[in-house]
Amino acid sequence: MSDKTSNQMWGGRFAAGPDAIMEAINASIGFDKRLAAQDIAGSRAHAAMLAATGIVDSNDVEAIREGLLTVLSEIDEGRFVFSTALEDIHMNVEARLKDLIGAPAGRLHTARSRNDQVATDFRLWVRDQCDAAEEGLLALMRALVTQAEAGADWVMPGFTHLQTAQPVTWGHHMLAYVEMFARDLSRIRDARARMNESPLGAAALAGTGFPIDRHMTADALGFDRPMANSLDAVSDRDFALEFLSCASICAMHLSRFAEELVIWSSAQFRFVTLSDRFSTGSSIMPQKKNPDAAELIRAKVGRIFGANVALMMVMKGLPLAYSKDMQEDKEQVFDAADNLMLALAAMEGMVRDMAANVPSLERAAASGFSTATDLADWLVRDTGLPFRDAHHVTGALVALAEKKGCDLPDLTLDEMKSVHEPITEAVFGVLGVHNSVASRTSFGGTAPARVREQVARWKDTLG
Amino acid sequence: MSDKTSNQMWGGRFAAGPDAIMEAINASIGFDKRLAAQDIAGSRAHAAMLAATGIVDSNDVEAIREGLLTVLSEIDEGRFVFSTALEDIHMNVEARLKDLIGAPAGRLHTARSRNDQVATDFRLWVRDQCDAAEEGLLALMRALVTQAEAGADWVMPGFTHLQTAQPVTWGHHMLAYVEMFARDLSRIRDARARMNESPLGAAALAGTGFPIDRHMTADALGFDRPMANSLDAVSDRDFALEFLSCASICAMHLSRFAEELVIWSSAQFRFVTLSDRFSTGSSIMPQKKNPDAAELIRAKVGRIFGANVALMMVMKGLPLAYSKDMQEDKEQVFDAADNLMLALAAMEGMVRDMAANVPSLERAAASGFSTATDLADWLVRDTGLPFRDAHHVTGALVALAEKKGCDLPDLTLDEMKSVHEPITEAVFGVLGVHNSVASRTSFGGTAPARVREQVARWKDTLG
Amino acid sequence: MSDKTSNQMWGGRFAAGPDAIMEAINASIGFDKRLAAQDIAGSRAHAAMLAATGIVDSNDVEAIREGLLTVLSEIDEGRFVFSTALEDIHMNVEARLKDLIGAPAGRLHTARSRNDQVATDFRLWVRDQCDAAEEGLLALMRALVTQAEAGADWVMPGFTHLQTAQPVTWGHHMLAYVEMFARDLSRIRDARARMNESPLGAAALAGTGFPIDRHMTADALGFDRPMANSLDAVSDRDFALEFLSCASICAMHLSRFAEELVIWSSAQFRFVTLSDRFSTGSSIMPQKKNPDAAELIRAKVGRIFGANVALMMVMKGLPLAYSKDMQEDKEQVFDAADNLMLALAAMEGMVRDMAANVPSLERAAASGFSTATDLADWLVRDTGLPFRDAHHVTGALVALAEKKGCDLPDLTLDEMKSVHEPITEAVFGVLGVHNSVASRTSFGGTAPARVREQVARWKDTLG
Amino acid sequence: MSDKTSNQMWGGRFAAGPDAIMEAINASIGFDKRLAAQDIAGSRAHAAMLAATGIVDSNDVEAIREGLLTVLSEIDEGRFVFSTALEDIHMNVEARLKDLIGAPAGRLHTARSRNDQVATDFRLWVRDQCDAAEEGLLALMRALVTQAEAGADWVMPGFTHLQTAQPVTWGHHMLAYVEMFARDLSRIRDARARMNESPLGAAALAGTGFPIDRHMTADALGFDRPMANSLDAVSDRDFALEFLSCASICAMHLSRFAEELVIWSSAQFRFVTLSDRFSTGSSIMPQKKNPDAAELIRAKVGRIFGANVALMMVMKGLPLAYSKDMQEDKEQVFDAADNLMLALAAMEGMVRDMAANVPSLERAAASGFSTATDLADWLVRDTGLPFRDAHHVTGALVALAEKKGCDLPDLTLDEMKSVHEPITEAVFGVLGVHNSVASRTSFGGTAPARVREQVARWKDTLG
Repeated sequence: MSDKTSNQMWGGRFAAGPDAIMEAINASIGFDKRLAAQDIAGSRAHAAMLAATGIVDSNDVEAIREGLLTVLSEIDEGRFVFSTALEDIHMNVEARLKDLIGAPAGRLHTARSRNDQVATDFRLWVRDQCDAAEEGLLALMRALVTQAEAGADWVMPGFTHLQTAQPVTWGHHMLAYVEMFARDLSRIRDARARMNESPLGAAALAGTGFPIDRHMTADALGFDRPMANSLDAVSDRDFALEFLSCASICAMHLSRFAEELVIWSSAQFRFVTLSDRFSTGSSIMPQKKNPDAAELIRAKVGRIFGANVALMMVMKGLPLAYSKDMQEDKEQVFDAADNLMLALAAMEGMVRDMAANVPSLERAAASGFSTATDLADWLVRDTGLPFRDAHHVTGALVALAEKKGCDLPDLTLDEMKSVHEPITEAVFGVLGVHNSVASRTSFGGTAPARVREQVARWKDTLG
Repeated sequence: MSDKTSNQMWGGRFAAGPDAIMEAINASIGFDKRLAAQDIAGSRAHAAMLAATGIVDSNDVEAIREGLLTVLSEIDEGRFVFSTALEDIHMNVEARLKDLIGAPAGRLHTARSRNDQVATDFRLWVRDQCDAAEEGLLALMRALVTQAEAGADWVMPGFTHLQTAQPVTWGHHMLAYVEMFARDLSRIRDARARMNESPLGAAALAGTGFPIDRHMTADALGFDRPMANSLDAVSDRDFALEFLSCASICAMHLSRFAEELVIWSSAQFRFVTLSDRFSTGSSIMPQKKNPDAAELIRAKVGRIFGANVALMMVMKGLPLAYSKDMQEDKEQVFDAADNLMLALAAMEGMVRDMAANVPSLERAAASGFSTATDLADWLVRDTGLPFRDAHHVTGALVALAEKKGCDLPDLTLDEMKSVHEPITEAVFGVLGVHNSVASRTSFGGTAPARVREQVARWKDTLG
Repeated sequence: MSDKTSNQMWGGRFAAGPDAIMEAINASIGFDKRLAAQDIAGSRAHAAMLAATGIVDSNDVEAIREGLLTVLSEIDEGRFVFSTALEDIHMNVEARLKDLIGAPAGRLHTARSRNDQVATDFRLWVRDQCDAAEEGLLALMRALVTQAEAGADWVMPGFTHLQTAQPVTWGHHMLAYVEMFARDLSRIRDARARMNESPLGAAALAGTGFPIDRHMTADALGFDRPMANSLDAVSDRDFALEFLSCASICAMHLSRFAEELVIWSSAQFRFVTLSDRFSTGSSIMPQKKNPDAAELIRAKVGRIFGANVALMMVMKGLPLAYSKDMQEDKEQVFDAADNLMLALAAMEGMVRDMAANVPSLERAAASGFSTATDLADWLVRDTGLPFRDAHHVTGALVALAEKKGCDLPDLTLDEMKSVHEPITEAVFGVLGVHNSVASRTSFGGTAPARVREQVARWKDTLG
Repeated sequence: MSDKTSNQMWGGRFAAGPDAIMEAINASIGFDKRLAAQDIAGSRAHAAMLAATGIVDSNDVEAIREGLLTVLSEIDEGRFVFSTALEDIHMNVEARLKDLIGAPAGRLHTARSRNDQVATDFRLWVRDQCDAAEEGLLALMRALVTQAEAGADWVMPGFTHLQTAQPVTWGHHMLAYVEMFARDLSRIRDARARMNESPLGAAALAGTGFPIDRHMTADALGFDRPMANSLDAVSDRDFALEFLSCASICAMHLSRFAEELVIWSSAQFRFVTLSDRFSTGSSIMPQKKNPDAAELIRAKVGRIFGANVALMMVMKGLPLAYSKDMQEDKEQVFDAADNLMLALAAMEGMVRDMAANVPSLERAAASGFSTATDLADWLVRDTGLPFRDAHHVTGALVALAEKKGCDLPDLTLDEMKSVHEPITEAVFGVLGVHNSVASRTSFGGTAPARVREQVARWKDTLG
């Protein structure tokens, strides 16, 4: 709801009376004007079909199609005057068309209803958002792969419970997010394919007796096929809900990365420096750099998933076919889509600009005996100790190092042998964070060699 | 997000670059300008306190307070030019103040921070919404009481599972909603009382060393007291969440009544006729009257509770004190509040205008042997049968009536006695829907006498 | 949480002390025992791989694999004693394995961690639910197609706003739900394909230095491939969230149909009679048949989507890789899956058993001049009137019929000509509800011929 | 749903057939047995009233009331055999009562229905949870106040955006949470007061013709009064929703504190050490201490608010009065209440046991020129500079300190004067973190003196 409407409402509610209230709750032109391009594309496809099937005279159709282009250019150029009295985008466009071309405008709505018209417009709009999300995701994935390539062998802590567990590589961490966003992309593509069917021609809800050609309009609008059931076509909002579900999971991924960026930017971590472009500073505290964009991205999942909840609740328990409740669908999806695209773009910018603090990452990775599991694994692998015994020996070695105030690689071989005789010089090959990460060469592991293979695969895929 | 911003963003994202993205995600002036009146009231109270405590010179404060009034009138009259570069309402107001009064403007922000300023502004705004909700609820309750009074003895079906269970009175049904909305009102009042503490003077988060008087500013702004912990004051958004919770439960009540109105308006029920002002018709189907307003009200709970989900998710896991994530609070509350007020106003209008179809209600109430429980209760009460036996006898009488194709009151006494000898003439006093409702005189029961008592109580309460 | 635990907790909280509280919040064996079969399958695959790659001696592996089968049979037969002290299903199984086979049990956990183990177990469990949902959906779709075939030409009202808009066929209405559930099925299949990658071998989070063969274990467990990033493998819960999203949309469809069944079963509609098996009656009101199963199905969307909200909120803002928060994933998905399967089964049973009240449907379809749009369309199609003029003429004819107290087909040709001369005898071919539905032959339209084509297509598809 | 039921269902669905499905979806005894104590209390109160009003013979009532006590003790001692065939707790109890006392049991249900009975039982249960939440909140607040008292003058960083903004005291930070939990407590108390009305006597929905005394039963059960409208009494679930709203906001507060504890426990922050009782360690990494309880508490808000969403969605659009959908209310509230109490108890334990790392907190507080705003404020206060100019001077001094590699208090007076001549020795009184916090004496500020006042106030309040 625009501020305007709302102020009108509060200020003069009692004076204005029921008609103003009904207009405020009922009219959709305040938001559905965003469907103008889709509405006009749909109408032009419908008109062409009406001519091709002989339902409407070709000359009339020609006038209609030209007139609609004029309306579109008026809207694009900001010269169109929207009228709330005309309620919605469909009536606004049709009324203007009549001004422009007269009587033939009255034939455009033949064999069509506002129910299938709005279903078509909105579906086209959501399909466009799938494409925009794809573009945003690909750009972000490319930025992450660039970071991964640069830091394929930079060592950083791998956390569990925000406690250092094992060293990993920066590149590996970046690629974890590439995998997440790749799934988001895959989900969006599935959703797009599933929604790419045309409701146009379902008419009010029952289909029509006019000899229309729904395959023709479907083709013209880039749909794969017409929807197979007219009742379903006007009452389904799955495409919007599936888009919101995909957007919400994606926003959740963004929130996780954003949280990491906020923590990593703290004075205590100093793992990364975000660029000034996505931070705000303090005029008098030069070291304070607030990760505003990261925080806002972290928050967006609330807004986007809130829209998902809203629409699920609207659709809950609605009998077929069209109910006015469904008019609440658009603002939720508009807002969610806008914010997803914005969050993707902002995250891409931050990732592109951010600078890893490599020494700080490495220092953190080495703390806390983070290669203890490497040592235990080596004992199993090279000396044949059962897993649980290897853990016992490792615990003793760590305790020794702790007593000496040093890290595991700083113990001498003799000291190690004093705890477990079979240990050999070879053990030093797995100690130290660089050795640790280099050794984890299992498929999907953090070894720089593995990371570089994955980087290469992604560069191939992302072009 | 306005269409404008969003179009700018999509169109020229790559051209526009990171700065445009950061501006789009970071600036709040697009929505927080709705806080202008609250911001200026807060600043005026703060300035007066700065003078009273001697922190700032009285002449400067006088200039500031006058200047702020000028800014307010510029905004009210639509002459104020908002600047996105100035980011938010606070900076827009302060910058304009400086234009107007020069140097003294620079003293206004003494002993204050944007953190406590925005917390104060937003709290004042939400408090105003509590008052608006109270007004909307009271108006709706009055409309319901008027309906209840008119139909204190109109009989209609009391449903369980949307199956007629027992007759009730129209007035009783209306008063059930009065009870619900009264609880909503009570919740809103509790929320208002709880939020009515002033964050002003918490400064950035730690309080201040200036000798400010927080009780004075609290008083001036109508708060009961200053908040007792400055960290809490700038990081708390409970007031917004509690408002959203109350609004959501209220919207749920509205959705239940709206659902009933939609069902009652169907050709199959014809229990009510909604006024043309809140319905839309069909140009060629004169009997079709679509309950658009009711459907939209039914949907609003999704939107309002969606906002609640959004803000809960934003706040989840945020460390103290202020994080930028919290900037996402306002649009959710603005939208939820606007839609709640609109839904209350539309429902009030519908209730005021709607016409019950009394014969149709009574016919429905009498169908399905709806007074069978009255008969069973009579058998227990007047003949001393145990409850379970009384049910058995009643079942036999209903079967007899069904076989005869008549209703229970149409059986003769002899027929009744043939099933259960002790039945007397007195039984007819509880059969028939009017007798049934008249008999249910327990406290809170549906008897017209009870309904009239409750109507009287509510008229007293609502004034 | 079981009642037991909870009672222990309340009763003796202060006595029991912190250890009991930690056990209550931390232990997962109370619910993750449902993963027993998946856990053992995963361990057997892992063990076989350890032998094949020479990491563990074949004899030990043979003992492990046999021992695990014994554990499984103990669990299946209810002879296994679960221990809360052992915290989770993994430790319970391993401890029992050690009892059974001794030392070799200690080698099973080589090159593995609880992090990849639980990720594998849970993913296998959710994959099984996709299969169960597929089965449930197919059964429901078959039941709907059977109804559609039986009633391909039964006429009923097509509603907008719960007001009769145009006649449709029963078969068409049933097929609208087939389309919805087909999309649900398609979504579930996409989700299953996307989740079908193996986390096993990701170890704690970084992969391992053992020469494991992740492709081998992936194959053995029916996964398409191993996951490509070990950090992602242990921190991803997309598969659970996507399953919940799909389940929620499906539950929303079920809620819509359930709402229709509740309304259709009312005394006012009497469109269908539900079987006694899915209703409950009243001992003394024989006509009262409460649609309990339909109401419970209508409610399930709340529970299932509530689980979706819960897990989204848990995952919001979690840094990589594993955090204990993620232990909250399982109960939500267990409950949602159980309730989805139950709701699908109950709906299938209801659809199979329900009896349409054909005369009542037809009577309702014919009311309210529901063929007015057919008349208007005929005027456009056969007399060349522009759409808007045709509406005007139709309105006049409806007004005439209303004045006469008859329906449109009951007007004489002369009466019609008095309003609009060009009308011919042919007009009667589109009036009347059977003519109306027969005429709507556009692709996806409600004409019985079209419905039969779709029924044939679905019977082909569903087998 | 228990595993048992679910396994039965999957395994033998087709064999078991519709009756098993209906039982699985319809029976509530699996969960509503938790209402046993409330159900029996309600029945005993009802029976006493039936005797007092002469509706049922006193001897029968005596037998009923004694018999119910026997049933209760059987349940308490685990000797009661619950039957799914008897569907719910009410029928289970009544059937057992009949076994025990015979015929008089049949009189208990006089002037009552399962609708008002379950509404009463559940309301009593939720009221108990309010009391449990109060107890849990008070214990947690006391633990926080104890921490606050101990560390009233320990200095730590006050964060905005997780960046050090200004020094605060540990006590002040703890008290911020006391304020939040105090609001939670206040909300719970309001909710309890609002729900404390008795539905008993509303009967099925219309009240009753028996001369019952609803005030008497209300009194006996500790309710303030009977509910005033019988339709509302059986169809309202506000009390459950309001409890869930309060629980959700409280859980959100817990999630914020839990997030802080997770971050503070990291190797990078080392602000606190959690006790071993609420952490889990690693056998081979002695410094790794995973904050499991904190993470699980952080997650609980998802589960609790998920329950809120579930029930809101169930109630959306339900017509009056009772619908079976409402049976879905209990499991959500049971689970949310259990988890809230558990989270409160675990948090209390953690707070009680946790040890602040005071030197580490102080070191962090002093970094990043965190007293720059103190300097700026001093310039305004003591030298009369306007606020914006003071900021400029401070920026120059910070730059000077940064160039020298020292903190602000380490600059000499001469160095300061070189930037701004009017600075005097007195400036050093506000530099340094201890001076900073000591100076912030505004009401609600972080000064130790203020903190101690608040601690005293809370100790008074909390007893």
